[in-house]
Amino acid sequence: MAKIADLYYKADPFQIIEEGFDPNYAKISESIFSLGNEYMGVRGYFEEGFSLDSLVGSYFNGIYEREEVSSQNYKGIIDNTEFMVNSVDYFYTKVLLDGETLDLATAKIHKFRRCLDLKTGVLRRSFIWELNNGKQVEILFERFLSMSDANMAGQRIRFMPLNFDGSICVSLGLDFTRPHYMSGKNYFSCDEKRAENDNLFIVGTTKNTKQKIASMCKIELPNSPIGVIEKEDNKITLTYQIDLKKQCEAVITKVICNIVCKKSEETNYKKFNVKCEDKWRERTNFHYDQLLAESIEWWEKKWKESDIVIEGDDLNQQGIRYCIFQMHQTYHGTEAGTNIGAKGLTGEAYSGNAFWDTETYCLPFYLFNNLKAAKNLLMFRYETLEEAKLRAKELDCRGAFYPIATISGKECCSLWQHASLQLQASTGVAYGIYTYVKLTKDMEFLHQYGIPMLIEISRMLATRGDYNADGTKYGFYGVMGPDEFQMMVNHNCYTNALGKMTLRYTYDVIEQLKKEGFSEEEIARRYQVSHEEIEDFKKKADNMWIPYHTDTKLFEQHQGYFELPHVDVDAIPIEDFPLYHHWTYDRIYRNDMIKQPDVLMMMLLFNSSFTLEQLQANYEFYEPRCIHESSLSPSVHSILASQLKKHKEAYQFFGFATRMDLDNYNRNTGEGLHTTSIAAAWMNIVYGFGGMRSDGPILSFTPSIPESWNSYSFRIRYQGSVIKVEVTKNETAFQVLEGNDVPVKIYETEYTLGQSRLKVELP
Amino acid sequence: MAKIADLYYKADPFQIIEEGFDPNYAKISESIFSLGNEYMGVRGYFEEGFSLDSLVGSYFNGIYEREEVSSQNYKGIIDNTEFMVNSVDYFYTKVLLDGETLDLATAKIHKFRRCLDLKTGVLRRSFIWELNNGKQVEILFERFLSMSDANMAGQRIRFMPLNFDGSICVSLGLDFTRPHYMSGKNYFSCDEKRAENDNLFIVGTTKNTKQKIASMCKIELPNSPIGVIEKEDNKITLTYQIDLKKQCEAVITKVICNIVCKKSEETNYKKFNVKCEDKWRERTNFHYDQLLAESIEWWEKKWKESDIVIEGDDLNQQGIRYCIFQMHQTYHGTEAGTNIGAKGLTGEAYSGNAFWDTETYCLPFYLFNNLKAAKNLLMFRYETLEEAKLRAKELDCRGAFYPIATISGKECCSLWQHASLQLQASTGVAYGIYTYVKLTKDMEFLHQYGIPMLIEISRMLATRGDYNADGTKYGFYGVMGPDEFQMMVNHNCYTNALGKMTLRYTYDVIEQLKKEGFSEEEIARRYQVSHEEIEDFKKKADNMWIPYHTDTKLFEQHQGYFELPHVDVDAIPIEDFPLYHHWTYDRIYRNDMIKQPDVLMMMLLFNSSFTLEQLQANYEFYEPRCIHESSLSPSVHSILASQLKKHKEAYQFFGFATRMDLDNYNRNTGEGLHTTSIAAAWMNIVYGFGGMRSDGPILSFTPSIPESWNSYSFRIRYQGSVIKVEVTKNETAFQVLEGNDVPVKIYETEYTLGQSRLKVELP
Repeated sequence: MAKIADLYYKADPFQIIEEGFDPNYAKISESIFSLGNEYMGVRGYFEEGFSLDSLVGSYFNGIYEREEVSSQNYKGIIDNTEFMVNSVDYFYTKVLLDGETLDLATAKIHKFRRCLDLKTGVLRRSFIWELNNGKQVEILFERFLSMSDANMAGQRIRFMPLNFDGSICVSLGLDFTRPHYMSGKNYFSCDEKRAENDNLFIVGTTKNTKQKIASMCKIELPNSPIGVIEKEDNKITLTYQIDLKKQCEAVITKVICNIVCKKSEETNYKKFNVKCEDKWRERTNFHYDQLLAESIEWWEKKWKESDIVIEGDDLNQQGIRYCIFQMHQTYHGTEAGTNIGAKGLTGEAYSGNAFWDTETYCLPFYLFNNLKAAKNLLMFRYETLEEAKLRAKELDCRGAFYPIATISGKECCSLWQHASLQLQASTGVAYGIYTYVKLTKDMEFLHQYGIPMLIEISRMLATRGDYNADGTKYGFYGVMGPDEFQMMVNHNCYTNALGKMTLRYTYDVIEQLKKEGFSEEEIARRYQVSHEEIEDFKKKADNMWIPYHTDTKLFEQHQGYFELPHVDVDAIPIEDFPLYHHWTYDRIYRNDMIKQPDVLMMMLLFNSSFTLEQLQANYEFYEPRCIHESSLSPSVHSILASQLKKHKEAYQFFGFATRMDLDNYNRNTGEGLHTTSIAAAWMNIVYGFGGMRSDGPILSFTPSIPESWNSYSFRIRYQGSVIKVEVTKNETAFQVLEGNDVPVKIYETEYTLGQSRLKVELP
Repeated sequence: MAKIADLYYKADPFQIIEEGFDPNYAKISESIFSLGNEYMGVRGYFEEGFSLDSLVGSYFNGIYEREEVSSQNYKGIIDNTEFMVNSVDYFYTKVLLDGETLDLATAKIHKFRRCLDLKTGVLRRSFIWELNNGKQVEILFERFLSMSDANMAGQRIRFMPLNFDGSICVSLGLDFTRPHYMSGKNYFSCDEKRAENDNLFIVGTTKNTKQKIASMCKIELPNSPIGVIEKEDNKITLTYQIDLKKQCEAVITKVICNIVCKKSEETNYKKFNVKCEDKWRERTNFHYDQLLAESIEWWEKKWKESDIVIEGDDLNQQGIRYCIFQMHQTYHGTEAGTNIGAKGLTGEAYSGNAFWDTETYCLPFYLFNNLKAAKNLLMFRYETLEEAKLRAKELDCRGAFYPIATISGKECCSLWQHASLQLQASTGVAYGIYTYVKLTKDMEFLHQYGIPMLIEISRMLATRGDYNADGTKYGFYGVMGPDEFQMMVNHNCYTNALGKMTLRYTYDVIEQLKKEGFSEEEIARRYQVSHEEIEDFKKKADNMWIPYHTDTKLFEQHQGYFELPHVDVDAIPIEDFPLYHHWTYDRIYRNDMIKQPDVLMMMLLFNSSFTLEQLQANYEFYEPRCIHESSLSPSVHSILASQLKKHKEAYQFFGFATRMDLDNYNRNTGEGLHTTSIAAAWMNIVYGFGGMRSDGPILSFTPSIPESWNSYSFRIRYQGSVIKVEVTKNETAFQVLEGNDVPVKIYETEYTLGQSRLKVELP
């Protein structure tokens, strides 16, 4: 069960560096060197083509296709699913020299170096290509996606002939011919494509969902040769002959603009074309360097706000910066209406679906870094409320049942045992609203968007749940909690607890409205909810059964869990992992083994509600039963271990949190990055070692420092202020870098943080 | 929830009669008028063609096709399934007169009458066909499948022109072109077809399973006209012009011989051809009447042994004889290697699969009517033991895991929640061995076939089960019992009880071997089982936990069942049924509603192990929670209600048992007959009203009689003797018709039954 690091990239505080090219890492590097700007994402594939296995993936947030799934024809089981679809390769390039085509799978190359600069978001790749005839040319590929203008991207190629004069043939283009890797099918048709001077224009339309992507580019070359236009069904290219002079650089740049139209009903062809042309006109004269400079400026600001510095641990320093970089790349809330896919925009695994855990695992990062993004994540749920209401109906419930996995708001999980039994997407939304409002006091959001969602979710909970036989316990029967190794259970502690919170919070915000002077009639009219229903929410919250044993202080993961056969997880042979591949499906569900913390997750979400003794008892009971087959699991354990002052254990669990993908711990980084786990790594430092908590009455910290670190620091945005926390071996320093003073609790003492550094000794 | 009879056929003690033709009942009648002889089955379709919806079904026991099912790619979930495939229409006929084709969907007809004679197994259909030109011809179609020689079938057609002389054109043939109704696909290719004189020969080979069906026929006609041969890819026909003389009968007969080759490795083409030709030569000169006479003789003998006579209730008289008739048609043990499909050989629903309940629901009928058939049913399990061992391996168990649904022995159920969680197919086999050996004392069977199966099943149970957390309770986790409305539960009472019986019985038979002088070494060598393993079986049997509450005398259906939310099943609106169509899939599993009796089934199987008080408590608890969505449910309730002297309730539950299909209670008889429910109807009378039990130390009876009946009688074969039981309003008479004296218990007194009638007063 021990995960093993596969160290490949060079350690560096702000860069990911590959020196020398090993084809075995080609697909992993494609994921690692992915770029994204929330709007679009592109894997770090070799744009000139690569004849070994390669996932030439280019994705747009919210651009998806739909396919039938063979259903079992029972009510409530979905019969079609949606997935983020692989689309246009706007970095398309071919390089031909003296009859040889550049292909790193076969070419003789020297001094290969690839480097992703986390500070600027620029990916560079350089090498010397030696032809069969002995000619050598140094080549540099550079690319970036603009963070400041999400439609824009840039590509630069430099050729430097080392030992010859000659002519190189380069094709550049926009290519919609790439298949979706998972299905091998191409889902685009391209009716419109044009070339004018050195400009290319192509529009791809998805076959079933009828969404559109317009991709445009402008090419600049030395000595402006005339390009030869080639058009295929789904591709348009320009091919140039470029003169090379020994030891002189020839530089090509390509400025790219991509625009999507997500809603098929809005794809009025002419309107969309006009919009694209307007945008193009506006941006076309911007030079590559100018665009890049804007984007670098964006990154500079972000790093200032959200950097984490670790001294004395180069690998984790690199790792955590990579996590922060990827979080910003994946989502920063520019646009409402999208969510965070399990693999971000870096691969096709999990179908680009956003899972139930956005609000529990990803939201905290944004709540303390980028409130606009946090709000937009919640707005995604508001905008998909109608879909969630339809889903509830399909599931014989009233109200709203949020999907376990989704792109457009529709449930995309074809496994009923997850899609129908996991209520935590819905309660997660409620928890997200609760934490967002608690931190921001954004009452406008609460009144306009939050309450309608809360009412519909509570309505679902009040109809999905049941009272037990003697009517004394309310709770949820036939559910699967976050721990997916206990499939269909009753009174799952996490689900009941989150259900109780949701029902009670909904009641409370309505009560608050009344205190603010809203009459029952106004509330009923505005929110379409009766007094009786709100009272029913309260009653069910009051009667919600939380399986708890006072003698042992243990929460029982679900009714009867403590009676289950015990499995010694440490005795499971390593070759049995991952269990889903080696154990019969149902065998996984027949014992007390858990995949990820379920009770512990509850104790983290409502941390201030539990005593340290309770936390300790439950941690010590559940930790040995957990196999951490979810990538989110170790961070939760690490955070709570820190709280329990099990510092060594905390650091062990932190282990691969920041480097899950860089070191390919799960051996599947090639399929895409573990985006939500990246979010957990951030939490691991801020909530874990930093001991930050925001669920109590006041923001609090209980910092500790891993033995091997000299110091670390992090920054958060909190109620308009930027707070910097620096932790060294002996003390912690707090400082407000920007904004007003902030009251906080550090260990057990309350302070008011201001612009002068406050130092507190480590206990 | 009340089921409503759709009375359509005329009541008659020994015939099923349709008078006048209603096209709305066409497909139902196709099922009702199905013929079968275990080897083959043919629906009662109109052989001359029918242009409305029709399932022209012709099936052979053990002839199946295989198709991929989209799997969820988890271990232990099947990825292809097998189904009994629709095959050759050997009654193929076309009738053309004066340019009009006979088609009862459009023809003008008079005096339509169809009659299935249960005494002889002959199906006759007659009507007058009036042409547009006023010509009238009386037509009689007759068919039978031979019970004495299962390869043979006969078809006879009589034409009687009522008001004209003329010529009629008749095509007769063998037709493999019919699609499988459920998929719309045809699964046969026919390389070989020949016509010689009035003989036709065709061989169809299934596309994936490469099984073969040779179909041959010999046609006899008046005045021997020369037939015109027509061959299509999958069909061969002879077309004749037949002279008709006013008021004179013209009779055509067709003697058919069908031979199948089930194992593809044995389909050596030449060998199979020789076999078919030999058989054909042997039988070809038999005339239709001769074949029919042999078959009728078979039926006469059967009725003598197994008739049930009911006086004072014409509908149930007809119904129970129809059930007995269908049981014999479906299976009578001529050949080992086949089993009983859920729809017998009468339709494609349930894919022709035999389900887990063969040994619990069908076996009793054969145990008391046809021991050879009973043994062959068990031999099917022995012959598929290797498949069951492979399946166990797939499910991470040792030993043998028998399939929930199967044709060839392979698991065919693609729903993991049934295929992986239901253990009752395996324990059912063990129970079948136990009851068969108990009744027959067939120690040779036990030693040669029974023990190897018992050991492998016990081995599976000993690895599939687990001890609870504190090691005090052994049992099965993550199972579904016979009641499929409690999906994934722990310590299902039925499963644990049957598991306990199986493990203990296996231990006992091995102990018995030792007493008979077998050394441990001999046993180990012969059965490949160690002393330690046998001791482990015993230990697990001893530790098996049966959830029982001494205070209430209630067995709990599974651990935690009594805590489940209560559903008032009587309050469910009728339009919600069937629930699988109207309730969200998972909603069905979240309460205390049950689909069929589970605890009660256990109490029937081990009837003598429970007190009447226990039975009463459990009956009264579970009956109101049962919605009887399984067609087997009412009979079990009726039998136990009789035992509890709830005679009115017993008769109410008996209600539609004998006429489930005749009156189309479930509105799906058109898809095929409910074969296992037919078996339950027999049990309902013999075990229910007759109060017969064989699980105690001595065969016992506690007869009662439904109020509306004057008398009823049944016959059983028991240890070589035929016993007749007659029950009137006041008394019961017992008599051995054939064979030795039999000791029995009647009510509470022991007697020895002999050839003179023993009369006992009803209590």
